[in-house]
Parts: sequence; structure tokens; C-alpha cells
Amino acid sequence: MEVNLSILATGLDTVWVLLCAALVFFMEAGFAFLEAGFIRAKNSMNIVMKVFTDCTIGMLSYWVLGFAVMYGLDKGGLFGGSGFLLSGGFEHLQLRIPLYAYWLFQAAFAVAMASIVSGAVAERMKFGPYLIFTALAAGLIYPVAGHWVWGGGWLSELGMLDFAGSAVVHAVGGWSALAAVLLLGPREGKYNPDGTVNVLPAHNMHLAFLGTFILWFGWFGFNPGSSLSGLDLNIARIAVTTNLAAAAGGTTGMLFTMWKYGKADPSMAMNGALAGLAAITAGTAYVTPASAVIIGGMAGVLVVLAVGFFDRVRADDPVGAIAVHGVNGTWGALAVGLFAEKGGLFYGGGLHLLGVQALGVLAVSLWAFTATGLVFYLLKKTVGIRVPASEELEGLDINEHGIPAYAGLVAGSLGEVGVDEFAPDTTCAPEVVSRAAVQK
Amino acid sequence: MEVNLSILATGLDTVWVLLCAALVFFMEAGFAFLEAGFIRAKNSMNIVMKVFTDCTIGMLSYWVLGFAVMYGLDKGGLFGGSGFLLSGGFEHLQLRIPLYAYWLFQAAFAVAMASIVSGAVAERMKFGPYLIFTALAAGLIYPVAGHWVWGGGWLSELGMLDFAGSAVVHAVGGWSALAAVLLLGPREGKYNPDGTVNVLPAHNMHLAFLGTFILWFGWFGFNPGSSLSGLDLNIARIAVTTNLAAAAGGTTGMLFTMWKYGKADPSMAMNGALAGLAAITAGTAYVTPASAVIIGGMAGVLVVLAVGFFDRVRADDPVGAIAVHGVNGTWGALAVGLFAEKGGLFYGGGLHLLGVQALGVLAVSLWAFTATGLVFYLLKKTVGIRVPASEELEGLDINEHGIPAYAGLVAGSLGEVGVDEFAPDTTCAPEVVSRAAVQK
Amino acid sequence: MEVNLSILATGLDTVWVLLCAALVFFMEAGFAFLEAGFIRAKNSMNIVMKVFTDCTIGMLSYWVLGFAVMYGLDKGGLFGGSGFLLSGGFEHLQLRIPLYAYWLFQAAFAVAMASIVSGAVAERMKFGPYLIFTALAAGLIYPVAGHWVWGGGWLSELGMLDFAGSAVVHAVGGWSALAAVLLLGPREGKYNPDGTVNVLPAHNMHLAFLGTFILWFGWFGFNPGSSLSGLDLNIARIAVTTNLAAAAGGTTGMLFTMWKYGKADPSMAMNGALAGLAAITAGTAYVTPASAVIIGGMAGVLVVLAVGFFDRVRADDPVGAIAVHGVNGTWGALAVGLFAEKGGLFYGGGLHLLGVQALGVLAVSLWAFTATGLVFYLLKKTVGIRVPASEELEGLDINEHGIPAYAGLVAGSLGEVGVDEFAPDTTCAPEVVSRAAVQK
Repeated sequence: MEVNLSILATGLDTVWVLLCAALVFFMEAGFAFLEAGFIRAKNSMNIVMKVFTDCTIGMLSYWVLGFAVMYGLDKGGLFGGSGFLLSGGFEHLQLRIPLYAYWLFQAAFAVAMASIVSGAVAERMKFGPYLIFTALAAGLIYPVAGHWVWGGGWLSELGMLDFAGSAVVHAVGGWSALAAVLLLGPREGKYNPDGTVNVLPAHNMHLAFLGTFILWFGWFGFNPGSSLSGLDLNIARIAVTTNLAAAAGGTTGMLFTMWKYGKADPSMAMNGALAGLAAITAGTAYVTPASAVIIGGMAGVLVVLAVGFFDRVRADDPVGAIAVHGVNGTWGALAVGLFAEKGGLFYGGGLHLLGVQALGVLAVSLWAFTATGLVFYLLKKTVGIRVPASEELEGLDINEHGIPAYAGLVAGSLGEVGVDEFAPDTTCAPEVVSRAAVQK
Repeated sequence: MEVNLSILATGLDTVWVLLCAALVFFMEAGFAFLEAGFIRAKNSMNIVMKVFTDCTIGMLSYWVLGFAVMYGLDKGGLFGGSGFLLSGGFEHLQLRIPLYAYWLFQAAFAVAMASIVSGAVAERMKFGPYLIFTALAAGLIYPVAGHWVWGGGWLSELGMLDFAGSAVVHAVGGWSALAAVLLLGPREGKYNPDGTVNVLPAHNMHLAFLGTFILWFGWFGFNPGSSLSGLDLNIARIAVTTNLAAAAGGTTGMLFTMWKYGKADPSMAMNGALAGLAAITAGTAYVTPASAVIIGGMAGVLVVLAVGFFDRVRADDPVGAIAVHGVNGTWGALAVGLFAEKGGLFYGGGLHLLGVQALGVLAVSLWAFTATGLVFYLLKKTVGIRVPASEELEGLDINEHGIPAYAGLVAGSLGEVGVDEFAPDTTCAPEVVSRAAVQK
Repeated sequence: MEVNLSILATGLDTVWVLLCAALVFFMEAGFAFLEAGFIRAKNSMNIVMKVFTDCTIGMLSYWVLGFAVMYGLDKGGLFGGSGFLLSGGFEHLQLRIPLYAYWLFQAAFAVAMASIVSGAVAERMKFGPYLIFTALAAGLIYPVAGHWVWGGGWLSELGMLDFAGSAVVHAVGGWSALAAVLLLGPREGKYNPDGTVNVLPAHNMHLAFLGTFILWFGWFGFNPGSSLSGLDLNIARIAVTTNLAAAAGGTTGMLFTMWKYGKADPSMAMNGALAGLAAITAGTAYVTPASAVIIGGMAGVLVVLAVGFFDRVRADDPVGAIAVHGVNGTWGALAVGLFAEKGGLFYGGGLHLLGVQALGVLAVSLWAFTATGLVFYLLKKTVGIRVPASEELEGLDINEHGIPAYAGLVAGSLGEVGVDEFAPDTTCAPEVVSRAAVQK
């Protein structure tokens, strides 16, 4: 092969975007285990299955529909309308990298938005309707918001800055999660008539920490990869602001709980770091490392306050997804208007950019809240979205999937438990097989 | 350092191959936890130890022997015979990247083939003989098949297409696993005289999902990295077909079980995605994204049917390795003959390529089945390959390694349990130390 | 953007360093889970929290202070004194990559050193004082040693060779850990008056193996990334020597225990591989693959002997950090003097380099031991460094963080357990909430 400067530049950018896309895809494991760890064992596999279907059904939906809606030829600034099934016609994107590399990176973002919602509806949402939601989330809800800001839609025309998606991915995911939670209702036994809140304990904090470490790791692809070019040396600043915002959020989230409750709360150390990441994602390419520390540090406090607030209004979010992604995705989008070196209020840019950012994040959040609310409302009126109380008590893992997450973990018994038609031997533990049989 | 186009091209390709090699190495963690999660707790550490020895002893064996057999100077189209211990003499490979980068990438493939077998022999194979097998698998069995297709052997002469190893890695691993399983026999209590099958439950589905996510993540190195060049822009298509085949397999595997059993089976969602990955690996560089969805979607159904079939014939494979890698590696090699844009039957290429693919995958599968069968036969007649029934009942972890995977996980007791000569304190929990002492 | 050779070279190096930095950051998850798995469940979340604070508070400390001390303008060969808060003034580093990319890679190293110590003080050190230690470790203790060898300090003047930090990271971390352990004292119930050693069992070997796999994976960034350039084709050799040393150490560590104790000890298979990695880190760029196998193979035996030795002298290190990082980081630094192709004793280089290496590793080790010892002494005399025996018996997770690592994992009960002010519901399981309440 003959080598020239242009081929080398394209090759470098392609290698960069593909490796970053792999990191972003791996974040799905982060969402899965963060959410599974924060809820009770009996429902923990169901949530991982939901995140896994984001990667399967959601990914196919973004291939068939979502990418065309997000990046197809613009229709009135509202959505794209060409290139379904990756059938081409994306010359207007003027990509230097291959279209396929661009699609893969974008697809990993689309499924991440759906996975944000999956955590908030944990422990009581039926599996079947979730499959319909994830197809619509990756195929329509996220792509429309994405088109507005990144696909040549009306917000990009206004000059909104959302480098890697504090608004497009995190606010959209978080406020979609709020709509879903309000229509779904709180878990059985979560809130008492006297207004007090019961604790439904996290069953495996190591699983949650694994998820957090994977998400932080994957964010090194999520933000720097959004440059789409390894020749854009700003990727170094992006990686540093991303990392420092996470460090600052994890620090303030933990210290705030030490001061408020007398103990360093692990869930708030994790959610603080993730809130810092969600918040810096919009401005990562535009702010200084010091600003990133402030943005992330604020996020670590905001997430603790927000988690308490949503519990007071009985919006039952078992993993804090609304507080992490909704509140801090919104904060991050606004923070660009304050801290951006070009146009930020604190840098003499006046209020224009801040106004555009506020309008933009409000618009995509309203769209996400409304669209997801409508989908959940229609599902609720038709197939239903919530498992019966008896199944909720027993656990979704047995009822939806026929097996528990940890069969005979401690006993480690031989556990012959009746007949199953196929290996691997992933089926009910002795004490539950009878029930599972009943379910069939 | 003076920079020129040639140095930049080599540098880019080297960076690409090394990072992809790291991703492929990480797949070992995927195999380890997928397999451990699918079996009972009492044997779960033993399987992780076996995969870990693939990374240690297997890796050394590929350095001493395997690479020379696979890529050394060709002897009659059957095997290579030069360059043991990486002693050089590989100019005939005409590599642009450093030999060491090429070796590392290949070594990660070699240990993966051995790890495929480790899952199928779980819960009853002795540890010592496995060490001998992994040395021979990475040093001889896999390299001979690899030489035929990739090392200038007779199948490469015939024009067989196996881009990243559906045949060379997955079919070879899967059919080796079948031979091993047949010689080893089923686990105690798996099959009843009346022909029914008992379920030996998976002890930790989160561990299995972790393995699956890691394998999917690592496959972004496995397939695209096989291009050996970041300047080959086809890597973008390769990454997309890989990803879509996994998504399609995970979708069909799950939906098929929902339709057949009334519940979405997590093990088949996972194995469906992995089957899709094993199947697309041969054609990933030659087929369209739509073809990848069809190939992967078929794989997701095939794996469910195959798992049931092998149980009916009492080939006890606790993790479904034969169905995932053997059946779908074979399907993937044949699918190239159908879907390849150049030469595929569905693209007007006639039957020639399909015939070559069929001959090739049959040849490497027969070799793998025969060679592994011979090794297991000789081990069975000498040192023995199976633990006594009493040890199988008690668990291999205590008997082979002196400690359980989860000591006092729940109790979390102080657990002083006698004397041990070295820290870290990884030894028997109270209830098992007496037995372990007896074993000594 | 106009593309030229210089921009391409810088872009390639930046992409390489950023992706390697992400891999090194991910090693923090490796440390966290290796350490958590090797200790008892009741203290396992506390250790993960400590490693997590290395990533948050430690990272911020390296930004504010550490990087300036390590790479700022040299003061008498002892430390750097400019560029606090990344305020610039690093032209003397003559970097081709952006300063931010260099900072991120170095920051990931700094927090790794602190995390090495966290394991050795597991199960009895108070959380608060650890926060102070991690800030000082990443901000001062590690940077001073780093300045001596890599920052233009007196050891770099002498020509010491420590490519990726066997001395600067691992010996410094390991001997710091020894000082901490000696001041902290052994865990309750670890040693008997008669001189025998009690086993405090590892609660989750899969978690430990996960940590080991992640560390090995991350080391493909740790060592090759230290080249700081993707154009330095020696990165291929570096990746291979790194990998082979790990394989050799894992092999000898396991075989040595099989021979000595009759069982293949999983903890020593893991620690053997990690010891091989710690040992090869200094010479990875200077030795042959065969030498790497010898260096790593020796490390695998050394670690087993060292673990036994430190237990005999009652230096209670629950995870073997001193043996892995201290002993083998030292061995690795010395091994450069023996095996380096240029200047090594076995290559006719005489004793000069060996002498410099010995002096260098001795100097940084003494500094680390003394500085950490002083910090722990002052903390002990002021805030105290050890939890009360009652809390140690009950577990640090409940007492320091208010929740257990695995709440109702097996029971999976609904688990309403009183009132908590914020979600996610990560709080005490029923049986412990009363105690936790008492703590408040």
C-alpha cells in the first residue's frame, strides 16, 4: 500500500475513534454492574439483562433507525430522514474517518442513554416492555435530541456547545428516567405513610465499585474520542479535565457525606465521581483543568442533595440515575456558559452563551421527559409496565428469567433440581424451582 | 528522531496491534469469569486457575514452541519448523510491524483457544493434567491448525478465508472441547438413567455477565486487530460487523428462549452474543453489516439448539463452549462462502469458495478433535484426567487448591482456622479446613 | 487542518500516551479488587474506598503539588519546585506530546504507588488518616523519589535505569507499606503467642483474580506507555518482555507452591505474576524476552519466600504487597544491572551499572520507608491510625461507612431496615443496622 500524509491522518483518526468506541461500549458493563450492585440480589440479574438488551436490541435499533434520525439529511432542524440501515447518503457529514467508525462510536453513545434509564426503573419494571422502550430510546428519543445539537438541528444552529453530551446523553437519559419513574411508581415498601423512607439495601458494593471504575475508565474514550481525531491535540486537555472532574466529584461527594452523616458514604463517593463526569462532559474541551475541578466538585455536592430531594418527592430511583445524569448533565451544560474560555460568563463572554446553553438543555430535557413519558404511558395502558406486587416481593430474577443471580453460592451444593432442556446449567436453585415451575 | 512516512506508518500499525493485543489478552478474564459464573461455586476457582495457567504456562509454551510451529518456515504445508524461542528467522512473514508485536497478538490468540476447552471440562478434570494439555494446546494443537490457514500451509494455498479465526480459533477450540468432554465423561449427577438431565446451577450470573461483557469488549481487538494495520480502513467495517453480529446473536438467542420457554434466558442471551461473535470472526472483513446481522442472528438460534443437542447426546459441557465456539465457529467459516462480497454464493461467486471453506473448517476441526482426543486419551491412561467422585462432590477448589472461592463471604467471621505458612491469607474457611487438612 | 509529518508524529504519540494512561488508571480497579478479595468481607469495602480515594484525593494532590515536586525545575537534585496546579513552566521537559497528556500518564502512576500501600494496611487502619496519607503519598513521597530518577534529580545524573518504575513505583510503594505495617501492628488474632500464624481467610478469590487480570491488562499501558512515543518501535519488545515476565512469575509461583505444599496455591499464582510484572518494569526496555522470563521466574519464587518471611517477622501484610512490590521492585531494579543488553553484568558491562542500580533502589527505598514511617508516626501520635479492637472485630465497613459490602446477598430479603436520608439504598443490612445506628 502506498502511504501518504492523507492516508496516515485518516488511519490515525480511525484507530483513535475505534479504540475509543470500544471503551465507550465497555461502559455498558459499568452501567450494568453499578446498577446491579446498588439494588437487591433478587432483582439484580434482571437489571443486567436490561442493560444487555440495550447492547443487543438497542444497538440494532440504532442501526436500523436511530443513526438516520440523528445524522440523516436534516428535516426542518428537527430530525434526520435518510440513511436507514446504514444505507449511505451521509456525505453531508463531511467525515474524514470511515462512516462505519463514526457509526460505531455514535451507537455506543445511543445505548448508553438507554442504560441510564434502566437503573432508575430497577426492581419493578417488567422485562418485555423494557425491550420496546430500549428500541425506541436508541432509535428515536435519543437520536432526535442528538440531531438538534449534533446533527445539524436547530440547537446547533443557535451555537449550543455540548462537546460529548452532558445534555444530549446525560440530561436526556436522566430526565427520561424521571418520567419513567413517575409513571412506574415507587418500589413496594420504599416509602411509609408517615413520609419516612425505608432503605432497600444495596446487595453488592463491590459490583457497584466495579461499575464505577469501568465507567470512569470508559469515559477516557467517551470524551476524548468525541474529538473524532487523534490529530486534535486538545484531546490531552479533554482527558485531563475529564479525569480531574471525576476526582473532584468523588472527593466532594464523599467529604460532604462525612461532614453530614459522620461516615464516608461509598455510594456518594461513587455517584460523586460519576456526577463530576456527567457534568464535565459538555465543557471538557472548552474549560481549564481548574474549572473542571470546580465543575466536578460542585457536581459531587449536587448529587448528594439531589438524591435526597428526589426521595422526598417520592421519585424512587434505586441507583440515583436522575441525580447523577439528569441534574448534573444539566449543570454541566450550563457550566459551559460560565466557564468556557471562549464565551463563558466568567471569561467576559456575557450571558449569550449561557442563555443558549440553558435553552438547549431545557429543550432536550423537555423532549426526553415528554417522549419517554408518552412511551411509558402507552405501554402502561396496553401491556403494562409493572410486575405484580407478589412478583416484586419474590424478585424479578426468578419470575422474569427463571433463575436467581446467585444459585447455591454459599451452599455450593450439588443442586440437582429437576429437569432442564439445555445447558449451561443456569437455572433455579432448589428453593425456587418450584415457584419458577409455577410461573411457567 | 527523524520522522518520515515509513516510520509513521510502522509506528501507527505497531500502536494499533499492541493495543489490540492487550484487548485480546483481556479476553482471558472474560473466559475465566464466564466459565466460573456458569458452574457451581465449589469448582469455580479451579476453572479460573485453569484459565490463568493458559496465560502463564500456555503463553510460555507458545513462546518456546507454538509460534515456530505456526509461523516458522513451512514444512510440506503441514507445520512450521524454525524460530523456536523467538530466535528469529521470520523474514518470510514480510511483516511491517516489529516481530515482537506480531508475536504478542498471536500469543493472545493461542491462549484463547486453550481457554475455550477449559470451560467444557469444568467441575471434574484434574488440575495437573490440564497443565500438560494447555502447554500442548498452545504449543502444538492450535499452531498446526493455524499454520494450515495463516502460516502458509496447505489451506492458505487453497484460498481459505478465515480473517480472525472462526475456524482456526473457535472451531479448533470447540471441537477440541468435544473430544475432551467425551473422554472425560459427564459430571456426577448430571444425567439420569431415564434420560432426563439434571440442572447443576450456575452460581454467579453477574460473574458470567462480566465475562461476556469483557469478551465482547476484547473482540474489538480480536477482529479489527487481525488487520495488523491501522492504515487498512477496512478496520472500521470489521469493528461494525463484529459488533452487529454480537447484537444480533444476543437478540435472537434471548428472543428464541422467550418464545420457547416463556422466559428470557440470561445464559442464552450471553451465549447468543458470543455465538454471533464466534461466527462473524471469519467473515468480518468480507461481509456487509446486514450480512453480519444475519450471520449473528442465525448463530443465536444455532447455539440454543446445539446446547440442547449436546445434552441429549450426554456430552456434558457446563458452559456451552462446544455450542458457542465449535458449532458457530464452523457456521462462521461456512458463512464466508455464502456472504463474502467477493466469491460468496449469494454474491454470484458460485460454490468454489464455499467448498474451500467447508473443506478447511472440516480439516482443522478433525485435526483438533483428533489431536486433543489423543492427548486426553494418553493422559487418561497415565496420570488420569478425572478427580475421584468424592472430590467432585466436595468440590475441586478445596481438593486441588486447599481453599474455597468464597471463604466466610456471608459470615465474615474472624475465621482463625489453624496455621498456614504464608500470607496473603487465602486458605480454607473453618468448615472445610479439616477436610483440606485430611487431603494433605 | 493542514497535516504534516510533525503534526502526525505528535498526534500518534498523544493518542498512544492517552490510551496507555487510561489503561494505567484502570489498574486502580485492579488494586482495589485484588486487595478486597484477599481480605475478609467485613473489611473489604473499606479497602476499595481507600483505593478509590487514591483516585480522587490522591489525583487532586498530584495536580496541586505532586507533579511540580516531581517534574518542576530541579532544586539541588532533590526535588522540583515549579508548576504547581499545572500552572506551566515545564519547557525544560522538552516534551513532544502535550503537557496534559504527560501529566495524566504520570498522575496514574502516582496514585498507583499509594494504592500499593493501601493493601498492606487493610483490615485495621482508620479511614480518615488514610486520606491524609494518600494526599501526601501522591503529593510528596512518590514525587520526590520520582524526581531523583526521572525528574532530573541526582540518580538520573548517575545514570540509573528504571524504565517504568520497578524502583520508583513498586519499591517505593512496597517499602512504604512495610513502614506503615510496622507502625500499625498486626491484625487482631493474626499471630499467636506460640509463634504460629492464624489464617484470616480471603473472602472472594474471584474478586482477587479479577484484580489480577485487570492489573496484567493495565501493565500493557504501564510499561509500553512509558516510552511516551508510538514511534519508538521498542514498545513491541517492552510489551513482550512485560507479558513473558508475568507468565513466568505466575508459572513459578504456582509450581513452587505445588511442590512445597502439594496444592497449586491461587494466591501465589496471582502474586507470582504480579511479582514478575513488578520486577520486569525497570528493565522491560533493556532486556531480551529470555531474560524477562528469568527475571519474572525468579520473582515468582521470591514472592512466595518473601511472603513467608514477612509473616515470620510479624509484619502483617494481608495482601502480600510488600513481597510483591517491595521485594520484587527491588529485584527488578537490580536485575537491570545484570541483564541489560547495554551495561549489564551478564553482557560484559561489569559492575558499574549494577552498583548504580543498587544505590538507586536503596536510596528511593530508604526515602520511602522513612518518609512514610514519619507520616504514620505523626498520624499515630495525633489522630491515631488504628481502629479500636471492637471495631476491628465487627468490621471496618460498618463502622467507617455504615454499610456492609454484601447486604442481604443470600437472603435477598425486602430488607426494610429503618430510615435513611438518601438513596441509592446503600446502607446497613437488618442484622447490622442497630449497631450502625449506635455508631451515629
